[in-house]
Amino acid sequence: MAEKTGRKSAQSASKTGDGPVGTGTEPLDEKDRKKARKKAEKAQRKAAEAAEAAVRANLEAEAAVETAAAKASKAARAAAAAPGVAIDPELVPTVVSPGEFATALRVGPGFRLADVDTSSTPAFTGDKAQAELVMRAYEPEIADLQERLYAASRDGDGASVLLVVQGMDTSGKGGIMRHVVGLLDPQGTSIHAFKKPTAEERRHPFLWRIRKALPEPGIIGVFDRSHYEDVLVARVDDLVPASTWRRRYGQIRTFEESLVDSGTTLVKVMLDIGHAEQKARLAARLERPDKYWKFNPGDIDVRHKWDAYAEAYEEALVKTSTDEAPWYVVPADHKWYARLAVQQLLLGALRRIDPQWPPADFDVEEQKARLADS
Amino acid sequence: MAEKTGRKSAQSASKTGDGPVGTGTEPLDEKDRKKARKKAEKAQRKAAEAAEAAVRANLEAEAAVETAAAKASKAARAAAAAPGVAIDPELVPTVVSPGEFATALRVGPGFRLADVDTSSTPAFTGDKAQAELVMRAYEPEIADLQERLYAASRDGDGASVLLVVQGMDTSGKGGIMRHVVGLLDPQGTSIHAFKKPTAEERRHPFLWRIRKALPEPGIIGVFDRSHYEDVLVARVDDLVPASTWRRRYGQIRTFEESLVDSGTTLVKVMLDIGHAEQKARLAARLERPDKYWKFNPGDIDVRHKWDAYAEAYEEALVKTSTDEAPWYVVPADHKWYARLAVQQLLLGALRRIDPQWPPADFDVEEQKARLADS
Repeated sequence: MAEKTGRKSAQSASKTGDGPVGTGTEPLDEKDRKKARKKAEKAQRKAAEAAEAAVRANLEAEAAVETAAAKASKAARAAAAAPGVAIDPELVPTVVSPGEFATALRVGPGFRLADVDTSSTPAFTGDKAQAELVMRAYEPEIADLQERLYAASRDGDGASVLLVVQGMDTSGKGGIMRHVVGLLDPQGTSIHAFKKPTAEERRHPFLWRIRKALPEPGIIGVFDRSHYEDVLVARVDDLVPASTWRRRYGQIRTFEESLVDSGTTLVKVMLDIGHAEQKARLAARLERPDKYWKFNPGDIDVRHKWDAYAEAYEEALVKTSTDEAPWYVVPADHKWYARLAVQQLLLGALRRIDPQWPPADFDVEEQKARLADS
Repeated sequence: MAEKTGRKSAQSASKTGDGPVGTGTEPLDEKDRKKARKKAEKAQRKAAEAAEAAVRANLEAEAAVETAAAKASKAARAAAAAPGVAIDPELVPTVVSPGEFATALRVGPGFRLADVDTSSTPAFTGDKAQAELVMRAYEPEIADLQERLYAASRDGDGASVLLVVQGMDTSGKGGIMRHVVGLLDPQGTSIHAFKKPTAEERRHPFLWRIRKALPEPGIIGVFDRSHYEDVLVARVDDLVPASTWRRRYGQIRTFEESLVDSGTTLVKVMLDIGHAEQKARLAARLERPDKYWKFNPGDIDVRHKWDAYAEAYEEALVKTSTDEAPWYVVPADHKWYARLAVQQLLLGALRRIDPQWPPADFDVEEQKARLADS
């Protein structure tokens, strides 16, 4: 094994002294050499036994998880099939419905951001562990729907999804990308993170860079920040005259309407984090050297403009939450809840599209005969 | 619950007759109504109990899996830390090493494609279930390394990885994307699938579209097919004169050398599937209507040119497997083996890069004080 075995192995080797036998710079006599070899062999045998036992335990646990997840998913569907009767939420923490999340979180007329309890968990009464299990239970259905969506666009035409994720610093946008979008097939997913516009982007209308990043048919596109920054930071920091950002609400409505007309289902999500929770999350980043890179002193400057951002968000949400492209405000103090909610909203969108496997565009029997001869 | 609850729920509702109570078009008398409600309530209670039981089972199983995976990973590392002693492979089917995969699969001088047993599993003696568990056990380390890689490039400079995946139709390229690349954080990953060149691409040198898709610093780029198509299909189908594709080996070597010089670690993988296995996989696609969309009659035409492709692959592999950018030929009749092997090769590349958390570019105590005041 000539290759470097990695940082961690090297560390544990130097800690325990189980380095390569006989290759040290210190001379070893035959006895020492034998002793070291024996010690290394023993350590390896123990490690091997532990690994083997872990594999066995893993195999059993794996099977149990699959059975349980399948059961939970089936039960959830069965319960959702009888919508006329109220379900006792105490009894069924895991029976969820995308429709209920959509209803509970949707921005309607008269919406006020201040009314949202950022630590609440609308449409869900379970806890973190249960939320993760529910998410896992729905994975197969989402995978199936995503593959159908992709397959249905094989001829270059077909539906797409655009998930727009907005939220203040530390609201958990990255976690949504990792833990919700990360469960999708990457071949049918395109993520675009919009940063501060480049010089070239600034020379174009604000929707220019957005249009270039729209998902193709069959694809689930995801925007980490979006054109909404052009009515958020652009407004709060006076990057453009007020008359300009005021016109953008209408421009965005028109733009999104045309997206919907061309077959894109929009899922617009604002992760709503509380002021105190943000402070705690920023503090956590300052406590851990492996999190320093995520911290930017500018985050505190933005924090001082909290109320201005809240005002800008509220106006944007109310003015652009349409029947075709509604906004959902997701309480985000609990990361596990926000992830579950976004997964359910995405699932709801895929179910509404209801993509179907395309029929064969060739003669199946003819091709079977050709294949047999090949 | 006004929203559509989805295809499957709707189906099961119509099958069992548990539709919304009292909202049907048929008039129901009070007794029927009561009976239906009772029936629905009972069905829901049963579903709820099953869901609850599944959650409990899931929670226990989940905990067991995590413990076991952690143990296996630790054991594997401990064993790898004593490289001077041979490990009995019978004893430790799950103790694997990226270095061993690299050594076993690397294309060296005198390599002959015909010598590869496409159903073999070099550097691994376990079975499918064990391979999946090993993959899971290494997930945390890969996630950690990927995040470090990403963090280390925060200032716009830094290393990147480029995984090149080549292989005949049905060799499992899509499965590598879904099951190996799909385990990575999508925020730090970019997949590019190279199709038949467009008219615009054909007007440019063959590396033009490749250069545009190269990973930025901090990113793991993945090519599903690549510039190697320009010495494979281009050669077999005479798309360019022989003098042109012959010159390309040197051009590719020079190109990849410059990539390595600029900080990109290349992992070039050829998924090597057997002629009979391909036939079986194509036949499977013709048996399932949900797989028709993956089948293309042209796949059988390509199959008739098997030997010409083998010759083209062999020459490409031998002529472009350099010390800086070696080729790995992965036996691919067993999909689970190919996935494990590619994961291990990727892990090896990340370990060699050994990316480190960047230091804070601000005064931590100063920022803590600022945050406290915000």
